[in-house]
Amino acid sequence: MSGLVVTDARLDGERVGLRCAGDGTIAALGPEVVAGAGEEALDAGGALLVPPLLNGHTHAAMTLFRGSGGELPLVPWLEERIWPVEARLEAEDVYWGARLACLEMVRSGTTRFWDMYWHPEATARAVGDAGMRATIGAPFFDRGDPAATWAAAREELALLEGLGGPVSPALAPHAIYTVGEESLRFIAELAAEHGVPVQIHLAETAAEVADCIAAHGRRPAAYLDGLGLLGERTVLAHGVWLDEDELALIAARGATVVSNPAANMKLAVGKVFPWPAARAAGVRVGLGTDGAGSNDSLDLLAELKLFALAQRHAAADATAIRAADAWAIATGAAAPLLGATPLAVGAPADFVLLDPGAPELAIGDPTNDLVYAADRTAVDTVVVAGRVLMRGGAQPERDEVVARAVERAARLGL
Amino acid sequence: MSGLVVTDARLDGERVGLRCAGDGTIAALGPEVVAGAGEEALDAGGALLVPPLLNGHTHAAMTLFRGSGGELPLVPWLEERIWPVEARLEAEDVYWGARLACLEMVRSGTTRFWDMYWHPEATARAVGDAGMRATIGAPFFDRGDPAATWAAAREELALLEGLGGPVSPALAPHAIYTVGEESLRFIAELAAEHGVPVQIHLAETAAEVADCIAAHGRRPAAYLDGLGLLGERTVLAHGVWLDEDELALIAARGATVVSNPAANMKLAVGKVFPWPAARAAGVRVGLGTDGAGSNDSLDLLAELKLFALAQRHAAADATAIRAADAWAIATGAAAPLLGATPLAVGAPADFVLLDPGAPELAIGDPTNDLVYAADRTAVDTVVVAGRVLMRGGAQPERDEVVARAVERAARLGL
Repeated sequence: MSGLVVTDARLDGERVGLRCAGDGTIAALGPEVVAGAGEEALDAGGALLVPPLLNGHTHAAMTLFRGSGGELPLVPWLEERIWPVEARLEAEDVYWGARLACLEMVRSGTTRFWDMYWHPEATARAVGDAGMRATIGAPFFDRGDPAATWAAAREELALLEGLGGPVSPALAPHAIYTVGEESLRFIAELAAEHGVPVQIHLAETAAEVADCIAAHGRRPAAYLDGLGLLGERTVLAHGVWLDEDELALIAARGATVVSNPAANMKLAVGKVFPWPAARAAGVRVGLGTDGAGSNDSLDLLAELKLFALAQRHAAADATAIRAADAWAIATGAAAPLLGATPLAVGAPADFVLLDPGAPELAIGDPTNDLVYAADRTAVDTVVVAGRVLMRGGAQPERDEVVARAVERAARLGL
Repeated sequence: MSGLVVTDARLDGERVGLRCAGDGTIAALGPEVVAGAGEEALDAGGALLVPPLLNGHTHAAMTLFRGSGGELPLVPWLEERIWPVEARLEAEDVYWGARLACLEMVRSGTTRFWDMYWHPEATARAVGDAGMRATIGAPFFDRGDPAATWAAAREELALLEGLGGPVSPALAPHAIYTVGEESLRFIAELAAEHGVPVQIHLAETAAEVADCIAAHGRRPAAYLDGLGLLGERTVLAHGVWLDEDELALIAARGATVVSNPAANMKLAVGKVFPWPAARAAGVRVGLGTDGAGSNDSLDLLAELKLFALAQRHAAADATAIRAADAWAIATGAAAPLLGATPLAVGAPADFVLLDPGAPELAIGDPTNDLVYAADRTAVDTVVVAGRVLMRGGAQPERDEVVARAVERAARLGL
């Protein structure tokens, strides 16, 4: 079976073609690639060819919660607006919330995300139906009988492991303030046993750090490390309040930190992820939008600009981050665990074509423009595994997905 | 002559129609308005009808400088990258740079802007050709012979006053560190004599404040006030480093401050405009993108989200700003001088229709979603003076404007 052939794209200043293999990988890429007779051709018209963006931390189905309690700080927002409604969530709610999230992420050129949410099998189904890729974990909280909670976590992991396809499983203990020491040790053992990654919110607020020191005599990263939870398959979401010793430890263990600047600023946690120190320590870094309940968008291209601006602002130094570094972080290239796919023969045929007529990309360095000037109107075509998910900004499933998500939100009283 | 009739729009929870008069004002607005036989009708299909955004501070033609020296701080950026090229600018460069800016602003739902740039008559022509509205001033710097500089400023003002149409004139002394006391007094007199507004960059950096205190024994706002330059027709761009006494003085004089958070964060000036204190003092506040050389986009909808996030972050308080306050600032409703137009009978027929199928506007409070979730993909239709500038996101002049701007940038070696 032959695949899609893209012609007349721009890559590193050259006009290139890209041929997808029938198995969803890139079969050929270069100036010599042209469409043969009878091949399915997509004329890029001089569009810039770039790797897709990678959303390293979200709660996809929380599109249903958009705008709910939007002017509250983190803890009352969770306790008053989010958790009571989540107690009533059904799998079908999560499915349509996640479909809406996929629609929005693809619109921004994102093709892969890391998710932590209830009914993960429903999110996995949404990812498959939307044509995206994801690593998904069920949130783990301590509640009731530990043995029953642990058994449920084992079952959920087995369920996700059985799904295959574009979804890979993860474990997702919510945070060190909602999951106790014994359960965190259990998660570390289960992750090692199954060889799966662990996602956890860490060092999001100053209170979390202070409470950790008070309870455990050390800061969050050191505490996690002592429990065997800091390793090459660990993804730490936020990391706003990490100090230099913690960053050195995280780098030494090969763990990844995913920054979510919009959610951190919106929930007003008071600081910005210390990227200059993380870079100096050699920490692997990714970028995430967090859930739509606390951002409120899933637009990683907007998040990319915010990340760069927040770093320059926090350092009071316009040279604090180069556009190329920010771009590498947003595409997942700066954190191998996250699963970025390079534009290379043999790699998955996942890529983005930018509108060749986009005003914001017409003048200046392309990487600078992508970080600071472009927005989603410049994202023209999104392809995953050789399959076109969006062309000319159009997403055929849009109206149906929006309508169904609106119904589910209404059902929940959102 | 009868005008456009918009049908089936949503406003404050109602389905309404809007009839434009032949003179470019709103003739009728309400549930009872429907298109008559033979009238030019635009079916909004349930789109949300909102006032346009108002860009309170920019240097439109600087789209040509996008990405030039993007990783430098303010002063070397100006001295090494911007000013040497500006010395070679021709009116035709400014015209096409400004046309590109207009294209980008309309795409984000912006219909009116305040501009400070060379060859202002070329920007005025671009505004007219693009169908927008603007207040425009030539930048005033002290150089060479004061008498000649002042005479040139008089001539430029007379030229702009003669243009009429959608452009109104302003005086635009660049800053207190580039224009001396004697020239600032001259500008104050000229402005009073002609009844025109004055735009000036103020309190953008800590160094500017320190230098002002060292030279004049007081902070920037008090210094301007002593020169007769702080009044109801004064627009202060940035205001990042204003203190509480200055904010009280600005409020007492009825002057307007325009915040430009992206440029402030990108140039890393080290602080955020103190909006909570400005609100407490009763200062009139607007929002701007600054020029594309230091943002690098002219997307006021993105700037709106950044403004709200930056305020919540700087205050370390998620309740620091309400979405409705941020929206009022971005539409110009919080600063009467800026020239916002209400959605009301008799007012100019300037308005925006949002895509009724936009995923980001489907769930949650519309104002919250506009501030935190929506982006330019949701801006469907833009109308100024009853004339449709954009419909379905399409701008017929786009490719021509982009191509000509690219030629002018190349000519300048940008």
